[in-house]
Amino acid sequence: MRYSPLIDQLIESLRCLPGVGPRSAQRMAFHLLQRERDGGRRLAGAIRDAVDQVGQCRQCRVLTEEPVCGLCSSDKRDRGLLCIVEGPADVFALEQATGYRGLYFVLMGRLSPLDGVGPEALGLDLLEERLAGGEVQEVILATSPTVEGEATSHYIAELAHEHGVRTTRIAHGVPMGGELEYVDSGTLSHAFAGRRDYD
Amino acid sequence: MRYSPLIDQLIESLRCLPGVGPRSAQRMAFHLLQRERDGGRRLAGAIRDAVDQVGQCRQCRVLTEEPVCGLCSSDKRDRGLLCIVEGPADVFALEQATGYRGLYFVLMGRLSPLDGVGPEALGLDLLEERLAGGEVQEVILATSPTVEGEATSHYIAELAHEHGVRTTRIAHGVPMGGELEYVDSGTLSHAFAGRRDYD
Repeated sequence: MRYSPLIDQLIESLRCLPGVGPRSAQRMAFHLLQRERDGGRRLAGAIRDAVDQVGQCRQCRVLTEEPVCGLCSSDKRDRGLLCIVEGPADVFALEQATGYRGLYFVLMGRLSPLDGVGPEALGLDLLEERLAGGEVQEVILATSPTVEGEATSHYIAELAHEHGVRTTRIAHGVPMGGELEYVDSGTLSHAFAGRRDYD
Repeated sequence: MRYSPLIDQLIESLRCLPGVGPRSAQRMAFHLLQRERDGGRRLAGAIRDAVDQVGQCRQCRVLTEEPVCGLCSSDKRDRGLLCIVEGPADVFALEQATGYRGLYFVLMGRLSPLDGVGPEALGLDLLEERLAGGEVQEVILATSPTVEGEATSHYIAELAHEHGVRTTRIAHGVPMGGELEYVDSGTLSHAFAGRRDYD
C-alpha cells in the first residue's frame, strides 16, 4: 500500500535533503499537510527563489544572489588578508568566532582527483589571478584537517609561494574545553609534535 | 553577519519542518544550493502541489487529493469493519503489518478539550452518521495508548454502544521481541492485569 500519488511524491522529494530517511520524510510530509500548509508554501517559494537566483560571488565564490557578496564589496575589510575556506558555512563560523577583518576565498570543495575535482573546479585559476594582482599580503589556510583538505592547502601554499605571498595556516591541536583523554590519537600526536614555548 | 537574504530566507523556511533546528536548516540549505538544485526544484514543486491539492477523504478523513481515497473506494474491503486511528501514518503502519481487510476512520488528532479539540474537529459527527447507517458491524479502536488517546477511544465506544455496534480494541501489553526487564512499569502492570488463558 502507498499513500496517494501527491503524498508519495512529497515524501520521495523530501529525501533529497541531507539526513532525511524514509521515516523522517514521512513525518515531515504529514506535518506539512496537517499543521504547516502556510509554512510549506513559504518553504516551496524560498527553495525555488534560492535555487533559481543564488549564484557565486565573482570575487570569493561564496554563495550569494548578488554579483559580488557583502563581504567582498565592503570597504571595511582588509584586502591584504585572504582566508581560504572550503565552504560558505566556514565563512559564517569564522565570522562568528573570530575578529578577522580580512576577506575570504571559498573553494566550494577540496581537491579530490579521484572524484574529478581539480584546481579549476575550486576556482584556483581565479585565486592565482588574485595572488598575481599584488594586493594580497597574507594567505591564511583554513581548509579542514583531512587528507584532501591538507592536499588542497598544500597546493595553494605552493601557488602563494610562486607569487611571493606569505602563507599561514590556522592552528590544529587539542580543542578548547575538551578532556585530554577523550581526544583522538591523531589530534593528540599532532598537538604534541606541534608544541610551542609556554608564555 | 548573515548570509545573503535569499539564503537566510531559505534557512528560516526550512525550520518549519519537524526536527529541523538552525544547524540542520543551514546544512540542508547549503546542500540544496551546492549539490541538489534539481532536487530542490522538484521538492518545491512537490510541496506546492501537495499543500494546494491534498485534502481529506470524504468518507474516512485520510489525507488524499481524491474526493474519496483508494481504500474507501476499493470493492475488495470489508465494509462491516471500521478501524479508528489517529493519523494517516497509522493506516499505513496497520496496512503494512496486518492482514486487515476492513476500512479505516482517521480522526486526524485526538480529543483534547484544553487545546480546543472537541468531537467535531475529529469528525465524530461523520463517524456517528456512519454508525447510524447500519453497515458497520464492528468498530476496532486503535488510538494511541495515551491519556488523550484512551479518552478518545472511550468517547467513540459510547457512540458505538448507542448505535448497537460491537466495539473491540487492539491489545496492549509487552511488545514482541522486547526483554521484560526493559519494559516500562505502566506497560508491564497493564500486561499483567490483562493476562489471558494460555492456549
